Amino acid sequence: MKRKGEVPLMLLASFSVVLLAMTLSPGVRAQDGGPVYTSDGRLQQPQGFRHWKFIGAMVTPNGLNGGKAGFPEFHNVYIEQANFDAYQKNGVFPEGTVIVKELTLTRNSTYPDGSTDEASGRGFFEGEPNGLDVTVKDSKRFASTNNWGFFNFGHHAQPYAESSKESSKAECAGCHAAGASKTDMTWVQFYPNLRSKN
Amino acid sequence: MKRKGEVPLMLLASFSVVLLAMTLSPGVRAQDGGPVYTSDGRLQQPQGFRHWKFIGAMVTPNGLNGGKAGFPEFHNVYIEQANFDAYQKNGVFPEGTVIVKELTLTRNSTYPDGSTDEASGRGFFEGEPNGLDVTVKDSKRFASTNNWGFFNFGHHAQPYAESSKESSKAECAGCHAAGASKTDMTWVQFYPNLRSKN
Repeated sequence: MKRKGEVPLMLLASFSVVLLAMTLSPGVRAQDGGPVYTSDGRLQQPQGFRHWKFIGAMVTPNGLNGGKAGFPEFHNVYIEQANFDAYQKNGVFPEGTVIVKELTLTRNSTYPDGSTDEASGRGFFEGEPNGLDVTVKDSKRFASTNNWGFFNFGHHAQPYAESSKESSKAECAGCHAAGASKTDMTWVQFYPNLRSKN
Repeated sequence: MKRKGEVPLMLLASFSVVLLAMTLSPGVRAQDGGPVYTSDGRLQQPQGFRHWKFIGAMVTPNGLNGGKAGFPEFHNVYIEQANFDAYQKNGVFPEGTVIVKELTLTRNSTYPDGSTDEASGRGFFEGEPNGLDVTVKDSKRFASTNNWGFFNFGHHAQPYAESSKESSKAECAGCHAAGASKTDMTWVQFYPNLRSKN
């Protein structure tokens, strides 16, 4: 025979355990979730990536690349916190890792190289968002390109494409294989935060 | 008279409420905590800032600044998530906001301007960490410099200083007042993620 109070106690206990597990997950934010594909195999645009872990920026200005850089112009690179943590612990990107590179134009170019003078010095300063490239690690789906798939959601102002088909080897994977095959197809040398333990 | 089960029920209920509050705090990571000062008023080095919200990067290369940039060379700028959320909601940085600018050197300069050729094009690529500057909003403590205090933990390789005294108006606040007084002493024009609602 059930006594009054038993069911609420068990419900509350279960609820507490679930909440405790959610609370203690180290650094996993709500939007972490890995890649999502459409039924015909296109990658859906990752959501909330500007809140992911920033691992590094670089800038390849149009002015230093014949007026038309392959990646115009700042590259801001992000990874989900859980995959960052796993990489720092094991030196390997887990299956399902998504790395996002958002491009932004430089701002107010005044010199031919695209730089400008600001209070902090002459240099390159970030302007408006201008493109989105995404890589996904999946050793089954992308076995033929060293376990990573490459996706381009447009190199232009927002909005970016809602989904993207996999880019060809000539478009993306070939270059990563030639230059970054020893570091899991990822240019880790450009990402100081990936090397940092802080 | 207490019945068996009443105390555990109340304890569990309280525990659940606390956990729920912790779980639902929007985007507040464990290391968020605002500024910490020593007993003699020095700001302690913020911890874990590379895991904070990235809001933008810029680069003022030594090669474009007479061999010695004021801020060598990439500026990676971070803010705590809760203060980012408040700024996006209200357009105002809350009291206690800490903004961190970590500098990194450019990598492998091959041209006089400090740029180099990499697979993605000619440009500037992040190398090793090279400095830490921090601003704190506190309208009482820093009333004489438009509500913000400025702190420098060194422009050099790690380790940075463990604490810093407030920089003089001539060193920092004067320039921010001259160029960014209309945007709460902060160069929001360089931070595309601050303007983004995604």
